[in-house]
Amino acid sequence: MNESSFSRQHHILSVLVENKAGVLARVAGLFARRGFNIFSLAVAPTQDERFSRITLVVDVERAPLDQMVKQLDKLINVVEISELHPSLARERELLLATIKADSDLRAQVIQLVGVFEGQIVDVGTSMLTVMLAGSPSKLDDFEVLMRSYDIIELARSGRIALPRL
Amino acid sequence: MNESSFSRQHHILSVLVENKAGVLARVAGLFARRGFNIFSLAVAPTQDERFSRITLVVDVERAPLDQMVKQLDKLINVVEISELHPSLARERELLLATIKADSDLRAQVIQLVGVFEGQIVDVGTSMLTVMLAGSPSKLDDFEVLMRSYDIIELARSGRIALPRL
Repeated sequence: MNESSFSRQHHILSVLVENKAGVLARVAGLFARRGFNIFSLAVAPTQDERFSRITLVVDVERAPLDQMVKQLDKLINVVEISELHPSLARERELLLATIKADSDLRAQVIQLVGVFEGQIVDVGTSMLTVMLAGSPSKLDDFEVLMRSYDIIELARSGRIALPRL
Repeated sequence: MNESSFSRQHHILSVLVENKAGVLARVAGLFARRGFNIFSLAVAPTQDERFSRITLVVDVERAPLDQMVKQLDKLINVVEISELHPSLARERELLLATIKADSDLRAQVIQLVGVFEGQIVDVGTSMLTVMLAGSPSKLDDFEVLMRSYDIIELARSGRIALPRL
């Protein structure tokens, strides 16, 4: 989706959890029961394998989120929760896309990937797979441009974020 | 975590779901009830805003995963499931890390980031925030090197994957 359709204030929660079965289901379940749609979520182990970090982006009013954070904090296996305000965070995201481009169009796509400082992952006779990492709005801009071609498949990682220095 | 601790066969599932509240909780809940630990999971909207793609990596034997796929397929709001065999997929992941590095160490970290074709996101007087996108094993190698410094915070996106061309 592009940034314009995500103009309301979003909130980034960074939740450090124990790396155990069922933790993610409990966290996602808490949001589901309150009818919150999770815009994006990324979870992977941290530098300490005992823990995983869940980064999630939700689009809600301030008040219910505060209650949510309190409830999250009570969940077993949740170690730490921090909210990152978008203006104080470095948000980054990853995109992989396979684009239909025969030899005539290939040069155009490769050039655009270069402009955005992305990488070509795979080249076939009629398709290209490209990778781009950057701010969510940069990825949105790139995605809009790629729509002029034929996007066969596209996957985005959802945002991860760290506090600005 | 590094690759060596993830040597058993892993499985990548790419699940296209309707972009609605509660879908992620149902998917994660299905894995949790069977005691499957999800190694990583990434969910974000696709090029069509009505749908999100969940990419998840699990580390299980073949047989129970087949049953799991059948059960996933029965879930409401699940549109399509594909399993990507690691040898037939392009897997990529994103890493953000804040590293403690004063002016003496800064040049070392910046050089390593350059070697890995990463980017410097932020520079402070005593810290750096760096970004790296690439294959999971490349990120693992980078993470191991960064451990020689002081990792203040680290977040990984979990894998996303598309079929090889």
